[in-house]
Amino acid sequence: MNKGEITRQRIIAEAAPIFNQRGYAGCSMQDVMEATGLEKGGIYRHFESKEELAAEAFKYAIAEAFRVRRVGSDAIENRVERIKYLVRRFVEVPSVLPGGCPIMNAAIDSDDGNPVLRGIAREAIADWKKRLCGNLREGIERGEVREGTDPRRIANLVVAALEGALMISRIEKSRTAVQDTAVMLEGILDGIRAQG
Amino acid sequence: MNKGEITRQRIIAEAAPIFNQRGYAGCSMQDVMEATGLEKGGIYRHFESKEELAAEAFKYAIAEAFRVRRVGSDAIENRVERIKYLVRRFVEVPSVLPGGCPIMNAAIDSDDGNPVLRGIAREAIADWKKRLCGNLREGIERGEVREGTDPRRIANLVVAALEGALMISRIEKSRTAVQDTAVMLEGILDGIRAQG
Repeated sequence: MNKGEITRQRIIAEAAPIFNQRGYAGCSMQDVMEATGLEKGGIYRHFESKEELAAEAFKYAIAEAFRVRRVGSDAIENRVERIKYLVRRFVEVPSVLPGGCPIMNAAIDSDDGNPVLRGIAREAIADWKKRLCGNLREGIERGEVREGTDPRRIANLVVAALEGALMISRIEKSRTAVQDTAVMLEGILDGIRAQG
Repeated sequence: MNKGEITRQRIIAEAAPIFNQRGYAGCSMQDVMEATGLEKGGIYRHFESKEELAAEAFKYAIAEAFRVRRVGSDAIENRVERIKYLVRRFVEVPSVLPGGCPIMNAAIDSDDGNPVLRGIAREAIADWKKRLCGNLREGIERGEVREGTDPRRIANLVVAALEGALMISRIEKSRTAVQDTAVMLEGILDGIRAQG
């Protein structure tokens, strides 16, 4: 990375927690200037618009959230165990960035009609489901997951339940909904194990 | 109802679809004036503030959404069948009000720090879970649901999965996530039936 790229990455990393906590409308370029110590011109040298910076900041936040939750998962060979581990990590590992789940935050922000943020939320969900489906298909091939299991349905349930539980926990200001949902999902995943 | 109460109810019913579609910030008193044909003074005679009107509008929208989904459910005696019917209705019955799930909309709106809307979303979720738990407990008493089933966990999973699936479907602009989630939940509910 040259010096320009390093600065660009630093701006993204420092803007990410602000966008994730305050949302697109609630985060001003003034906030980003204060966080980075750069002048407005210094920021706009690296980004065409606030929208471009917000998009990169959300992508960074989502990548970080996935990265931290996935630590250690590849070492678990059995695919049912691996997915259960990922569900558990989702619930137990605190966010690296303040402000909660960046996918949900991008989704909520895109609700005001921002197609760029909606695209980022959509891609993140697609990527998450693709990884789950891949693990489930491998599990079928390895004889760990029952034949006839529908990976897409299970992936949709897991992602929907975890994101919905986060929404409930946020409203209730209590961890009960995510804890209960993780326990239920673990039971459902035990139920798709191949017999014998 | 006297004339004042009738007018108040009419304002709430006519403001509800606007708040549900555009959110709290996106709906102005001018919009409500146009929808109702009333002057600003005529509206403020019935509501202390825009916030009070928005709160009543969301409560109305949530009550309508529940009412429509619940039609016919009391006639189903078996509690597992009743809950499966409610899950199916949630997915298949179109919203009476445009703008999607009013609980999610109130939750998203409250994300900007509005405690009144957060309270309404929290109450709606609590009410929904309480009804599910009631049906599950009755199902245990009636010998239809397996002893040892934890109503709270199942209620949290059902509400989380349905609301999360709606969020995904909204982002994907596709019904697949809600359809898949309903099929999975139906299977899970079949799994809690008492044996024999």
